[in-house]
Amino acid sequence: MSAVLDDLHAALGADCVRAGADIPARAHADASGVAPTRPLALVLPRDVEGVSRALAICHAHGQPIVTQGGMTGLAGGAHPYETDVALSLERLTGIEEIDVEAGTLTARAGTPLQVLQEAAEEAGFMLGIDLGARGSCTIGGNVSTNAGGNNVLRYGMTRRNVLGLEAVLADGTVVSSLNKMLKNNSGYDWTQLMIGSEGTLGVVTRVVLALQPRPEGVRTALCAVSDTRAALRLLRVLERRFAGGLLVFEGMWRDFMEAATREVGLAPPFAEPHELLILVEAATGEGEAGTARFEEVLGAVLEDGLVVDAIVAQSESDRARLWAYRESPYEYQPKLPVFVSFDVSFPRGRIGEAVADMQRAARAHWPDALSVVFGHIADSNLHLIVGGPGIDKKAVEERVYGIVASYGGAVSAEHGIGRNKRAYLALSRSEPELALMRTIKRALDPADILNRGRVL
Amino acid sequence: MSAVLDDLHAALGADCVRAGADIPARAHADASGVAPTRPLALVLPRDVEGVSRALAICHAHGQPIVTQGGMTGLAGGAHPYETDVALSLERLTGIEEIDVEAGTLTARAGTPLQVLQEAAEEAGFMLGIDLGARGSCTIGGNVSTNAGGNNVLRYGMTRRNVLGLEAVLADGTVVSSLNKMLKNNSGYDWTQLMIGSEGTLGVVTRVVLALQPRPEGVRTALCAVSDTRAALRLLRVLERRFAGGLLVFEGMWRDFMEAATREVGLAPPFAEPHELLILVEAATGEGEAGTARFEEVLGAVLEDGLVVDAIVAQSESDRARLWAYRESPYEYQPKLPVFVSFDVSFPRGRIGEAVADMQRAARAHWPDALSVVFGHIADSNLHLIVGGPGIDKKAVEERVYGIVASYGGAVSAEHGIGRNKRAYLALSRSEPELALMRTIKRALDPADILNRGRVL
Ligand SMILES: Cc1cc2nc3c(=O)[nH]c(=O)nc-3n(C[C@H](O)[C@H](O)[C@H](O)COP(=O)(O)OP(=O)(O)OC[C@H]3O[C@@H](n4cnc5c(N)ncnc54)[C@H](O)[C@@H]3O)c2cc1C
Ligand SMILES: Cc1cc2nc3c(=O)[nH]c(=O)nc-3n(C[C@H](O)[C@H](O)[C@H](O)COP(=O)(O)OP(=O)(O)OC[C@H]3O[C@@H](n4cnc5c(N)ncnc54)[C@H](O)[C@@H]3O)c2cc1C
Repeated sequence: MSAVLDDLHAALGADCVRAGADIPARAHADASGVAPTRPLALVLPRDVEGVSRALAICHAHGQPIVTQGGMTGLAGGAHPYETDVALSLERLTGIEEIDVEAGTLTARAGTPLQVLQEAAEEAGFMLGIDLGARGSCTIGGNVSTNAGGNNVLRYGMTRRNVLGLEAVLADGTVVSSLNKMLKNNSGYDWTQLMIGSEGTLGVVTRVVLALQPRPEGVRTALCAVSDTRAALRLLRVLERRFAGGLLVFEGMWRDFMEAATREVGLAPPFAEPHELLILVEAATGEGEAGTARFEEVLGAVLEDGLVVDAIVAQSESDRARLWAYRESPYEYQPKLPVFVSFDVSFPRGRIGEAVADMQRAARAHWPDALSVVFGHIADSNLHLIVGGPGIDKKAVEERVYGIVASYGGAVSAEHGIGRNKRAYLALSRSEPELALMRTIKRALDPADILNRGRVL
Repeated sequence: MSAVLDDLHAALGADCVRAGADIPARAHADASGVAPTRPLALVLPRDVEGVSRALAICHAHGQPIVTQGGMTGLAGGAHPYETDVALSLERLTGIEEIDVEAGTLTARAGTPLQVLQEAAEEAGFMLGIDLGARGSCTIGGNVSTNAGGNNVLRYGMTRRNVLGLEAVLADGTVVSSLNKMLKNNSGYDWTQLMIGSEGTLGVVTRVVLALQPRPEGVRTALCAVSDTRAALRLLRVLERRFAGGLLVFEGMWRDFMEAATREVGLAPPFAEPHELLILVEAATGEGEAGTARFEEVLGAVLEDGLVVDAIVAQSESDRARLWAYRESPYEYQPKLPVFVSFDVSFPRGRIGEAVADMQRAARAHWPDALSVVFGHIADSNLHLIVGGPGIDKKAVEERVYGIVASYGGAVSAEHGIGRNKRAYLALSRSEPELALMRTIKRALDPADILNRGRVL
């Protein structure tokens, strides 16, 4: 161990390697709720060559390394074991280029997402990636977790927004494909292996992202529907009528709306409660023509009964009021004494049954707990929060993941497997798939130094 | 060799294995123009188990196999060597499911693309994948080549349209992830490795595709611009103003339009020739409001001079007349005694210089040849055809790929590397990238039986 530290010191310089009490607390824990742990050492390279030297040394010593971005991950992937050397990307920041003609942005992997978003807007574009952790999460972390978020319906997961990457392999080799082209079928697209593999196959050091045009004339409505089936029919109608303009389609079930009223004090939006509300946003173009187009489509779905009631936002403050429902868990979740928060997906056609199953399980097994279901219906992704005093987290997880498995769902839709969901991965993946993942891991990281004990 | 055939016979049955003169001509050549070659044998499995048994046997014997889909590939990937066993997917056809609520279509890999397109339309959707070879190419081939085509600007390459795959690995292991969910971050997405690796890492046997809503109110125009820079500015304006509705943005340079007039006899669209014409299509919604929206946007770009002249199609026959220019090479290319057809990409901002370089090279080195440039400008993808008597194909390739390399472009934007572009792959990829590709290949196919001698 001290041989590793000596080598790291010698190769990177003293100010790039910290040990013991010199390791700041932010390297001790990510946002997943695991108890903070001090890693063996913290390495803070200044550039890709520093990352390369650090990995080559750890590879030679068989020393496990955990890569740390913004530490906002919810699966424990960047959370250190005490036997890990932590590798922080915090010094690899900054935008290197915005190429307006190519429609690309190139940045170092440690740059916070929000910095990229603001630069994209300044250049007259937007980024297709957005999530609540935008101020702290890094683009390298977003790539490595294939982050989802608020824009997936329109712009896809992070994978779809990545055109090029530079990464350092386990042995320190730097591979670079800072591709700016939308089409490139020249050999294997190895960057796909780095995206979503949660730092277990390489350290991402640079990212080329596609820039998106800013949608014009975004309008918002809250629609009440009778059930999930109706919601899915509404989704099909809106996708067709708004063409590429549909941006948001977020479902909030009755229990969720009740909690928003009860726990946060928000006024109920409709006189009567409804089984399911859908928050809709679409870009229909500036001006009155855009407004007319939005209202015409909503009018049609109201008229034929697909939507049973609706509120169309007439102002920014209306819009904020509608979004406040969707964001209400941010208010009460942190106050819950114990809670479990799920990020699962189901084939869209089975969401209705799956939600009913989860609600039934909650009533039967945790009758005193708060439990709410909401999520990105269009993306097949649901969130479930179960919280309250005396909750046995493991029992809740086992029951909910059992329901997920019974519908052929995914135990992680967007946050990843990390440390915390390893035990459940086999519920969503078959043995031949897991064996193939292990084959890939062994080929790229034979000494198993990159994020050892995560994902697989 | 005969031991392999004996084993294949025994495992698959006599009617699934052909040798010698019993191998039909369609297994001797793909569409790439390489001289037809009879493979050692042709295997025609009836199901995925048959594919699995065939691969396990070839793996045990170290017998190379070439996978054959619709044989429309232009890079020679499916073209057999005489030492190959050809594995045809032609019996693995048929749609297994259309799930309207999930918005997915599941099919066997040998199904022709057009069959899927028609089924999607019948179900009220469309497929995001479309290419000229639609009647013959198979979805397995589209996945394996990550095919592009007419819809990439709006729906991405094939990669973006694939939600799940089943594949057979080199040793016969069947791996299946018939995922229907838009979000699934549970472990590595190994399907990404199969997409675009041209059959060198596995045989694709089943595909789950995302269905797209059909765009409403598609409108067409031909716009004249002064140069590539103006075209890129126009692209940015149209992407913003049409939001997700912009479907087509195809560039045709002056030499291309001259050939359309001279070789095919099409009437010039404008009184004056222009440096660059752009064929634009956008979905702006049904009815008069949709027409008004389209015309308002075009009016604005004409007014501020970004577009110097424009024709808006007023009818289906107008539309066909505009598309005839774009499709004119299909008329004259087959008649050229010798030709080389390129499928390259450049960072968008460098397209103007690159086109000028290619045109200069054509004038200087092949003054008597026909040479035309056109392509998917929005996707950074250009096609160049150089044809005429006495063309030295190799010399033309070396010169053009040299230009591609000098701009950091890609030697294949969509058709792939196959057999024919292997010699040029290193112009678009660095040695560490090639080494990583070889590492992946060795891990998944240690005996190098899958499409040996292709891509790498
Ligand atoms: C308030 C809040 C809201 C959130 N909302 C969403 C959401 O809507 N959608 C969503 O998907 N997630 C969400 N998350 C989770 C989290 O923000 C994302 O997973 C994010 O992508 C993590 O980025 P990070 O830089 O913080 O990564 P970290 O937490 O530092 O690391 C995450 C994983 O990626 C690896 N990693 C980090 N950087 C690199 C690198 N450069 N190279 C290789 N591996 C690396 C780590 O080892 C770890 O395995 C949310 C989190 C919070 C706290
Ligand atoms: C008129 C015409 C127009 C075209 N237009 C386009 C275009 O616009 N965009 C574009 O990208 N291409 C285009 N192409 C090229 C070609 O159609 C595509 O590459 C197509 O995806 C090939 O499909 P296929 O089934 O014919 O594959 P094949 O030619 O049979 O095989 C292509 C490659 O994929 C492998 N393969 C095939 N099936 C499988 C499988 N099931 N599992 C594993 N590997 C497999 C083969 O081994 C080979 O390496 C065009 C071709 C023609 C003739």
